Amino acid sequence: MDLRVMAEVVNVKEYMAELGRNARKASRAIAAASTGVKNKALLAIADALDNNRITLVAENQKDLAAAKANGLEPAMVDRLAVKPATIDAMIEGLRQVAALPDPCGAITDMSYRPTGIQVGKMRVPLGVVGIIYESRPNVTIDAASLCLKSGNAAILRGGSESINSNRAIAACLAEGLKVAGLPNTVVQIIETTDRAAVGELIAMPEFVDVIVPRGGKGLIERISKDAKVPVIKHLDGICHVFIDSKADLDKAFDIALNAKTHRYGVCNAMETLLVDEQVAAQILPRLAAAYAEKGVELRGDEKTRALIQANEATEEDWATEYLAPVLSIKVVSGLDEAIDHITRYSSQHTDAIVTEDFTRARRFITEVDSSSVMVNASTRFADGFEYGLGAEIGISTDKIHARGPVGLEGLTSQKWVVFGDGHVRV
Amino acid sequence: MDLRVMAEVVNVKEYMAELGRNARKASRAIAAASTGVKNKALLAIADALDNNRITLVAENQKDLAAAKANGLEPAMVDRLAVKPATIDAMIEGLRQVAALPDPCGAITDMSYRPTGIQVGKMRVPLGVVGIIYESRPNVTIDAASLCLKSGNAAILRGGSESINSNRAIAACLAEGLKVAGLPNTVVQIIETTDRAAVGELIAMPEFVDVIVPRGGKGLIERISKDAKVPVIKHLDGICHVFIDSKADLDKAFDIALNAKTHRYGVCNAMETLLVDEQVAAQILPRLAAAYAEKGVELRGDEKTRALIQANEATEEDWATEYLAPVLSIKVVSGLDEAIDHITRYSSQHTDAIVTEDFTRARRFITEVDSSSVMVNASTRFADGFEYGLGAEIGISTDKIHARGPVGLEGLTSQKWVVFGDGHVRV
Repeated sequence: MDLRVMAEVVNVKEYMAELGRNARKASRAIAAASTGVKNKALLAIADALDNNRITLVAENQKDLAAAKANGLEPAMVDRLAVKPATIDAMIEGLRQVAALPDPCGAITDMSYRPTGIQVGKMRVPLGVVGIIYESRPNVTIDAASLCLKSGNAAILRGGSESINSNRAIAACLAEGLKVAGLPNTVVQIIETTDRAAVGELIAMPEFVDVIVPRGGKGLIERISKDAKVPVIKHLDGICHVFIDSKADLDKAFDIALNAKTHRYGVCNAMETLLVDEQVAAQILPRLAAAYAEKGVELRGDEKTRALIQANEATEEDWATEYLAPVLSIKVVSGLDEAIDHITRYSSQHTDAIVTEDFTRARRFITEVDSSSVMVNASTRFADGFEYGLGAEIGISTDKIHARGPVGLEGLTSQKWVVFGDGHVRV
Repeated sequence: MDLRVMAEVVNVKEYMAELGRNARKASRAIAAASTGVKNKALLAIADALDNNRITLVAENQKDLAAAKANGLEPAMVDRLAVKPATIDAMIEGLRQVAALPDPCGAITDMSYRPTGIQVGKMRVPLGVVGIIYESRPNVTIDAASLCLKSGNAAILRGGSESINSNRAIAACLAEGLKVAGLPNTVVQIIETTDRAAVGELIAMPEFVDVIVPRGGKGLIERISKDAKVPVIKHLDGICHVFIDSKADLDKAFDIALNAKTHRYGVCNAMETLLVDEQVAAQILPRLAAAYAEKGVELRGDEKTRALIQANEATEEDWATEYLAPVLSIKVVSGLDEAIDHITRYSSQHTDAIVTEDFTRARRFITEVDSSSVMVNASTRFADGFEYGLGAEIGISTDKIHARGPVGLEGLTSQKWVVFGDGHVRV
C-alpha cells in the first residue's frame, strides 16, 4: 500500500475490518502450513532483509529525519534507528526462530479411557494475534517471526514515528511469505497512523484472538482497559530479593549486586532488597559500598539507616518500579515479614530468596505468588531466552493463559483430540 | 449471615468489596493448605451435608414454595429441587473430588540451562474464582469443591430463587472448612439477591481473578460483555458430524444416531449432519428411519430432500443450536466442503468425522479449529468426566487459558521456579 492508498484510508473502521477479515482468512492458511513451509518463509524473510539493506536504511532515514524535526527525545530517536547491526540482529533472530521446534500439532497426554475412546491434546495456533508496540522497528520482525512460527496470522501496529521503516520491513515480509507460497496477509502492518486504528484493532473479537501490547505501562493500561479481546499484558516489574538469615552471604552479595546493577531499565531488575535483621549488619555495609561504587542511590527504612547511609524510604518507595539506579532496602524480622512485604508490594513479576535453608526455600517458592520465584539466583534471569524458550514475545504479569516469559507456546492453545472406532455414549 | 443482616446490605458495592477482600485474604490460606487439609475439608463438608439432610430439604422447600408461588416453570422448579438423591449426589461428588490428584504444586519441565540455573514450572491456584450460576443448588457444592481442591477461594452467586437452599448448603461448607482448620471465607456465597451484586463481582479485578458463568447463553453473553475480569465462557454448542465417503457406514449410523438422540438439551449433541454425496443415498434413508422412530424433525438442503423426507433447511438452521429433537442435514461434495461448512457455522465446540481414510482423518483433526475434534466417535463424549478430568467446571469455547472441558487444571496457572547456587547474569 503506498501513500496514495493511505490517503484513501478515510474510514478507519472499514479499513481495520478489512485487515481483520484478511487476517482471519490467512490464519487458516498459516495454521495449515507445514513446519517446513513456515521455516522457508522465515529464512526467505531473512534473505529479503539482507537483500534490501540499502532501502531499509534509506526508509529509516526518513523516519529519523522526521523524528528529529518533531523534536523527539534523543533516546527515542536512538531506539528508532535501523543500523546495519540492527538488520544483522533481525536476520539472526529470524534464523533462530526458524531453528526452534514447531509448537503446533504436538499431541500430548494421549490415553485410553475406560469407554475405549482415546483422548489427548493437540497444540494449535490461537488464530490472529494483534501486536501493538512503540518505536523500535525491529519489533516488527520479532513479532512477525514468532506469530508465523506459531501458526498465527498477525496484525502489527508499530509507532507512527517508524511508519516508513515498518513499511520497508513489511515489503521484506511479503517477499518472504511469497517465496514460501503463503498469502502476504499472514502478516499485515497497519498502514494508517490514525490512532483510531488501535481502538478498532482491540475491539474486533470476530477477527482478533489476542492482543499483545509491548511498550510503557501507560500504553498497556489503556489497551487493557478498552480491549474487547484477551490481552497478554505486562505491567510493573517490582522485583524483590530477600536475604535470609541462613543465606550464604557471598552468594547474597553477588545476587543483590547483580539483580540491581546488571541493567537498570529492565523489568526484572531488583527494586527492593529485604534483609533479615540477623545478617543485616554483616551484609549491608559491604553491599552499600558496592552500590556506592556503581552510583546507586539507596533508600532505607529506619533499621537500614542505622547500619548504612541511605535516604529515607517512604511508603511510595516500596510500591515503585524505579527502572533506575535507585534501590529501596528494608530490614525484616524473618521469612514471614519478607513474604508479607512481597505479598503487599510485589508486582508478581519475579522475587528471589537467598538462603541455604531447605524448608525456607520451599516455603518461599510455594507462598510467594509471582510469575517467577527464585532461590539463590538473580532476578535478572527472568527472561524467555534465559529460560530456554528460544524467543520471547513478552513477559506476562497475568495469571490467565500465559504467565511470566511468553514464548511460542504462549501464542498457542490446545484442542482435544478424540479417536474412536465407532464409539458412542451409552 | 441471617435475614436481618441481609436487610442491612444496602450498599452492594461495599458488601461485595468486603467479600472480595475476605476472598483475597482467604486465597492465601487455601493456596498454602496441604493436599491433606483440602481433602479433609471436602470430606467434612460431605459429612455436614449428610448430617443436615433435614435442614437442607426444609430450606429447599421454602425456595420451592416461593418458586411455585411466583409461577416458575415446572422444569425450573424441578431443577431447583433438593431431593435425598440430590444430596447423595453432592456427597458422592465431594468424595470424588477429594480422591482426585491435587493439581497444585506439581513441578514439571525442570531442566538445567547452559548458565547453570535450573528452571521449571510449578502449578499454582489462580487465586479467587467467581462463579455465577442459575437455579440448580447442587452447583454450589460442585463449584465449591473444585475451587477448594484447586487451592482457590471462591465467591459463589447462585440464582435468587435458590437462596434458602444455598444458604443451608453454605452452612455445611462453613462447617467442613472449620473442621479442616480453614477460614470459612475460603468459600463465600453472595447473600443478597440484588442483581447489582453480579455487576460488582465481575468488575473487581483486584479481588477476583477469573469468572466462570454457568447458565444460558444470555447470561454468559451479558457477563462477558461487562466483565473487567477474565471469563471462562461457554457459548453455543453447534456440533457437526461429517460422514465421509470412506466411512464405515455402520459406525456412521451408530455415531450419527447417538450424537443426536442420546440427549437433546446438551451442548455436545450434534446439530448438523454433513454427508458425502457418494454415500448419502446409502446412509441417509437408514438414518432417517431411525430418527423418525425417535421423533427427530429433519431439515435438509436440496440434495438431502431428494433422498429423504425432510423440511427445508434455511441459512438460519446451519447457525442454530437446537438443543431439541431437530437436526439439519447437508449433502456435501467431500472433505473440503465439509471443512468449509464447519469453519463457517461451527461454534468451535465439538466436531467429528466418520472415516476409515487415514489422510482425511489427519486433515480433519488438523484443519477443524474446534475445542474437541473427533474421529469415529460420538460428539457426546466431549465432557470432562469422559475425558478423565474427574470433574468439570464447564466447557470453554474460548481459546485463551482453557479450551474444551475445564477441570481442576483449568482453575490453576503455572509459575516459573528457578533454582541456583548464587548464579548471576553475566
